[in-house]
Amino acid sequence: MNRPEHVLVINAGSSSLKFTMFRMTGEEMRAKGLVERMGLSAPMLHYERFDGLKSCAPCKVANHDDAIRLVCEKLVAPDVGVLRRLSDVQAIGHRVVHGAEKFHDSTIVTEEVKGSIRACASLAPLHNPPNLGGIEACERVFPQVPNVAVFDTAFHHSMPPSSFLYAIPYEYYERYGIRKYGFHGTSHKFVAEATASFLGRPLESLRLITCHLGNGASITAVDRGKSVDTSMGMTPLNGLVMGTRCGDIDPAVVLYLVRRGMSANEIDDLLNKKSGLLGVSGIGSGDMRDNLAAAEAGNDQAKRAIWMFTHRLVSYIGAYYTILGGADAVVFTGGIGENSVPIRRRVVSKLACLGCILDEERNQAVVNGRAGLISTADSAFRAVVMPTNEELMIARETARLLSVA
Amino acid sequence: MNRPEHVLVINAGSSSLKFTMFRMTGEEMRAKGLVERMGLSAPMLHYERFDGLKSCAPCKVANHDDAIRLVCEKLVAPDVGVLRRLSDVQAIGHRVVHGAEKFHDSTIVTEEVKGSIRACASLAPLHNPPNLGGIEACERVFPQVPNVAVFDTAFHHSMPPSSFLYAIPYEYYERYGIRKYGFHGTSHKFVAEATASFLGRPLESLRLITCHLGNGASITAVDRGKSVDTSMGMTPLNGLVMGTRCGDIDPAVVLYLVRRGMSANEIDDLLNKKSGLLGVSGIGSGDMRDNLAAAEAGNDQAKRAIWMFTHRLVSYIGAYYTILGGADAVVFTGGIGENSVPIRRRVVSKLACLGCILDEERNQAVVNGRAGLISTADSAFRAVVMPTNEELMIARETARLLSVA
Repeated sequence: MNRPEHVLVINAGSSSLKFTMFRMTGEEMRAKGLVERMGLSAPMLHYERFDGLKSCAPCKVANHDDAIRLVCEKLVAPDVGVLRRLSDVQAIGHRVVHGAEKFHDSTIVTEEVKGSIRACASLAPLHNPPNLGGIEACERVFPQVPNVAVFDTAFHHSMPPSSFLYAIPYEYYERYGIRKYGFHGTSHKFVAEATASFLGRPLESLRLITCHLGNGASITAVDRGKSVDTSMGMTPLNGLVMGTRCGDIDPAVVLYLVRRGMSANEIDDLLNKKSGLLGVSGIGSGDMRDNLAAAEAGNDQAKRAIWMFTHRLVSYIGAYYTILGGADAVVFTGGIGENSVPIRRRVVSKLACLGCILDEERNQAVVNGRAGLISTADSAFRAVVMPTNEELMIARETARLLSVA
Repeated sequence: MNRPEHVLVINAGSSSLKFTMFRMTGEEMRAKGLVERMGLSAPMLHYERFDGLKSCAPCKVANHDDAIRLVCEKLVAPDVGVLRRLSDVQAIGHRVVHGAEKFHDSTIVTEEVKGSIRACASLAPLHNPPNLGGIEACERVFPQVPNVAVFDTAFHHSMPPSSFLYAIPYEYYERYGIRKYGFHGTSHKFVAEATASFLGRPLESLRLITCHLGNGASITAVDRGKSVDTSMGMTPLNGLVMGTRCGDIDPAVVLYLVRRGMSANEIDDLLNKKSGLLGVSGIGSGDMRDNLAAAEAGNDQAKRAIWMFTHRLVSYIGAYYTILGGADAVVFTGGIGENSVPIRRRVVSKLACLGCILDEERNQAVVNGRAGLISTADSAFRAVVMPTNEELMIARETARLLSVA
């Protein structure tokens, strides 16, 4: 087919569904929104149009099919819509969290692809089933429109075995697929490409360290456009200190908790949902802004949580700088990376030994979705802020695959 | 008391007991040895005198008391001994693996100290009980001689909370003592001091990265004589790829294995005894020399295991270089660090981006317990090989404590 012009991007969770409608000429966001509390009490639809028009209203949605139909109604509504008719939607791109080793790249959805996404569910039980649910709902609502799956793991497929293998008996990799997969790949790829463009240099000439710092957080060593190592592991639990996830921890701690009588589900819940900034600070929030405010107000535990976050991040930047054999830039993205002036200050000011000197004036200026350099002009190793746009990356991937198909 | 001249050092395991007899003037090793297969079939006594005289013979030892008595017999034997009478032994220093938060320093053994070592046993169930068994055996065999406990964890007590805390709810630290403790402290401290002396600079002026690479392996960031971060965790399982231990791994892997029906003991055994170089290479050995030989002979799995070992180590060196804000030297010690020319070559040749350039001629020359520089003369960040001597460090600590007592 010709390059699709109108691409809908769907990110389907178990109780939420995010959507973005793109016009690919000019890569324009036309409308976006979120259905939340799907299948729960009092679901809501948030909707925002390219021109800033916004609405938020209760709705009735029991499942992904209902949610997709609701989105369709909005997109073609005479007053707030952005499409004349539903058949304008030429392609749908879906975020799928786990592609395991099966998917090295985005792919057009077929029955076989759906089977493989289902098969990866044991590695991402909370994510892959609802991702697939979103795809199947689109197949029912838009029977003529092709779907493309874009995997969070795919960008990291280029990691060498020395990065992706765990030092456990090899048969556990072969038999159960226990290895590092990495996540946030769509974001790391997007900001790596955008940084190359920002620096005016080909991506193939750059060594970058991309830090995706949101509620989930991960860091990737990108060698000439390819991921060569990343901090998340078989699951998104490993690596950096996150909003509610512990990141790196002695695996013996899990055994210790098992022996104390905790169940796997309880430990999973503890490490994924009650840890990170939330767990250390004890202020009832894993949001970095709340933790910075509490620290500012003198809360020692919040200060500690922030120091841990920074320490871990600085360690990883140093590690990746070294395995890359030196790097051209460290790139900050995600909610914290794009907006937190104090966190960037703390991190970059620890990188002087690698040749990256903070320019605090620039640091303070680059916020609210702006891209910019925050290191001094003569830093050999640069610090760059680059807003991410995973939805746009999914739309691009969708258009790319369907143009060549 | 006066500074003790004759110090016996004991490292008591569950089925083995190592001993070294020192004369502190000149820090001379007089005799050393090992009782192995204690309490099992066919126990053996290995004995070596300062002058190279060696013996190895079957013996009858059921427990630590038997082993200590056997050692005593040897030390005063008219033909092979090094003491005129047992009462020459003025002090006994003991390696104790886990001192938790109770012990910031070596300590003279009292009833209270023994109680605390016992209380730390939940954190080191395989090590602390036999360590204590060795102490109690010495109390019975040498009722007049003071015992000193030297802890593997003590050197790391200087780590700040941002290094030693895990990002889990703070109450798990307060209630259960779940934190990073770090191990091999006696070795890291010894080589840090020896490196300062080798470089002719005060330890208080140096930032060092010490790599203890034996069957167990750990790396420490030493800032002006103090450990500020280390790779082992609550237990010795975390961090580098080791002979049979996995080191860093997504904690969700443990949960995955629990859910597949493995018991905590089975997983413990898997990750501590069947992983690392042994598990990845599948050649039936976790010894680096065997893995290098297998890789040389074309075994791809052994090559992979070695790359993983190197990759992990290089990552940590970069991480610690950065959190130290730059470093003066990386120090290699332990069996692999002191002797493996190819491993040091692979690691140091990845450090050029940090200003450390391998001098391969020097690298090849510094083996067999020699100390030496293996980076070029003009490297700002140096690579040093420094043989460790944990037994001597324990003897020094023992003498130090009893001299001031």
